[in-house]
Amino acid sequence: MFKDIDGGVCAPLGFQASGIHCGIRKNKSKKDLSLIVSDVMCHCASTYTQNKVKGAPIYVTQQHLKNLEAKAIICNSGNANTCNPNGIEIADQICQLCGNELHIDANDIVVASTGVIGQPLSLTPFQNHMSDLINALSTKGSQDACEGIMTTDTVKKEYAVEFELNGKTCHIGAIAKGSGMIHPNMATMLAFVTSDVAISKEMLNEVIHEVVDDTFNMVSVDGDTSTNDMLTLMCNGLAQNQEITQKDENYQCFKKALMYICTCLSQAIAKDGEGATKLLTCNVLHAKTKKDAKIVAKSVITSSLLKAAMFGEDANWGRILCAIGYSDADYDIQKIDVDFKSKKGKICVCQNGGGYPFSEEEAAQILSEDEIEIIIDLHDGDDQATAWGCDLTYDYVKINGDYRT
Amino acid sequence: MFKDIDGGVCAPLGFQASGIHCGIRKNKSKKDLSLIVSDVMCHCASTYTQNKVKGAPIYVTQQHLKNLEAKAIICNSGNANTCNPNGIEIADQICQLCGNELHIDANDIVVASTGVIGQPLSLTPFQNHMSDLINALSTKGSQDACEGIMTTDTVKKEYAVEFELNGKTCHIGAIAKGSGMIHPNMATMLAFVTSDVAISKEMLNEVIHEVVDDTFNMVSVDGDTSTNDMLTLMCNGLAQNQEITQKDENYQCFKKALMYICTCLSQAIAKDGEGATKLLTCNVLHAKTKKDAKIVAKSVITSSLLKAAMFGEDANWGRILCAIGYSDADYDIQKIDVDFKSKKGKICVCQNGGGYPFSEEEAAQILSEDEIEIIIDLHDGDDQATAWGCDLTYDYVKINGDYRT
Repeated sequence: MFKDIDGGVCAPLGFQASGIHCGIRKNKSKKDLSLIVSDVMCHCASTYTQNKVKGAPIYVTQQHLKNLEAKAIICNSGNANTCNPNGIEIADQICQLCGNELHIDANDIVVASTGVIGQPLSLTPFQNHMSDLINALSTKGSQDACEGIMTTDTVKKEYAVEFELNGKTCHIGAIAKGSGMIHPNMATMLAFVTSDVAISKEMLNEVIHEVVDDTFNMVSVDGDTSTNDMLTLMCNGLAQNQEITQKDENYQCFKKALMYICTCLSQAIAKDGEGATKLLTCNVLHAKTKKDAKIVAKSVITSSLLKAAMFGEDANWGRILCAIGYSDADYDIQKIDVDFKSKKGKICVCQNGGGYPFSEEEAAQILSEDEIEIIIDLHDGDDQATAWGCDLTYDYVKINGDYRT
Repeated sequence: MFKDIDGGVCAPLGFQASGIHCGIRKNKSKKDLSLIVSDVMCHCASTYTQNKVKGAPIYVTQQHLKNLEAKAIICNSGNANTCNPNGIEIADQICQLCGNELHIDANDIVVASTGVIGQPLSLTPFQNHMSDLINALSTKGSQDACEGIMTTDTVKKEYAVEFELNGKTCHIGAIAKGSGMIHPNMATMLAFVTSDVAISKEMLNEVIHEVVDDTFNMVSVDGDTSTNDMLTLMCNGLAQNQEITQKDENYQCFKKALMYICTCLSQAIAKDGEGATKLLTCNVLHAKTKKDAKIVAKSVITSSLLKAAMFGEDANWGRILCAIGYSDADYDIQKIDVDFKSKKGKICVCQNGGGYPFSEEEAAQILSEDEIEIIIDLHDGDDQATAWGCDLTYDYVKINGDYRT
């Protein structure tokens, strides 16, 4: 129904992007400022962190997106612009600078920041390099923009798909960053999604929440919900499909493509969690309700003890039952089965809430892979959910023992 | 008002204890079975884990303590007797064996287990060594009993105090274990407290909950609430004070002594958290309500990012604001001050919710100590709370990457 393509946020018609080093980060080989611009005005919605301590850019973006319209996204790394007394003023001035150079209204710009909390953000690098950033804009600029938003990320997270609506070719493109302070409660650290689909503001606002709840909000790296989480979806309508104005077949089709993109990004963020060596996928089956399935999946994927066991490739399923037990979900312990699965095979380790005889050797083989699936069958209903996470490693401790210096 | 004394659970009059190696653990140099016995019947209450997956011994103990009376506590390490199909039967038979040898009713015995979840617990070591355990009983046996309940603990947690009620000398003694899977929600992994105070069942049941809420329930090592948490308080009345039957001066005095003992145990458990190199104490001041203070303190002490920063001796206060932000507490971000304090001094790092200029060198000096206090002043009311935790280290990952083998 849809196929993977190249081009990231520039895959949809009418989008350009750029990423440069402007001097916020000390390391000159690291880009630290990114821009995404649409040729025409977009319908645009964002989801934000539910952390009560929010980055200044989030307040400014919320203001700018009240009318659900935007033309550009500007984002820096190396400084979160959070807990700074003049943070909102700085975020405002970044939009002013960018708007002036682009000849668009500052209110039509989405602004985001990621990096250390509580260090003053100077406007100087933005003043000195805004024209460089804009001169670098290109329909091939998605990779640069993706690099400009990375912090401790080790791989780029960039995806795009092509699909059809009413015979019109449509696209969705996206870039994201993750790594640490990842336990999104609304969206993840930063994800920017572009599309040339025509969709009403109302439907855009619906679809973004439906999709984020099942994707980014089901990822955990370390249980710490960041202050700057934000996902922004811009749709410029240049695909010329008939505008989506209700939850019809076309809405469902667009939602499926968006769900696919956001699932890819979520998995990529989990797999590239700080210090991670393994992607963990927790599938909870046959739950009473979707909510119960989600609670169980997220509790298991968040357990430090389970995460450390997965790093050690130890089939310590008791820690899974323990994490299910301290969650708020509704289930019958006596019915729970647990399997581990990877490319090397599948093994049952717990049946009816108790131990099931298994070969430790075979289990260790299965857990030696870098993508592990934990399958929890509650045998208690028809709903299911998936959560993504990663193992807890020496490197997570190393990276976070000395992040600022 | 009260003074520290030696003797642990045997410090109160009329208590004996023992600890032996009976063969549950493979390492013969590690004790794995402990017993505490009172000469006379005790008023006795327990608090238990709120994990819905509970160890079999908890179900049996709950049954035995319905009348709030007990004479003995038996506890093994090396196997949690949890998620085993015949776990309750085994826990029952342990009490039967012990009761027969002690010539007391099996219903007057509290039973507890700690160790790996989901591995069958054989009755054989208990059958073979119950008489050894009972022959070893002594008024000097508290240390042995303390060793018999340890798993990955590196230090013994044993305390006792002496105080007066109505001119009568009274005592409280205690042993506990902690280390990993520590995020108590009721009591911690295992704590056994004895006293010779005379107190009614009703008041005993009150005081245990009041004290545990402010002590054990404010400790977190890794956010994982165990399946076997349990604190048991036995009072045999041999101090011959007038029985405490209401919340009078004597109740408050007993509560203070008990609070002191439980605070010592809680700190010891946090400091000996798996892999820990530092004890973290988070003091939240001037909160709107006690509940708000507790939520903030526990959220901060549980943050993986903050714990890793403390290991790295990095004054990354932004992570404290972040953890306050994703908690459910009520406060005004703009009023929050944060200080770090240790033997080396005290330093303000955040004022009015924003950065406060400080010397990184001085901060690093302060954080180089092995006991760190994080002081969060909310400037928003009159309530306060304290939580205890530890840093997140390479050794936590190492210990838990391969716990079973």
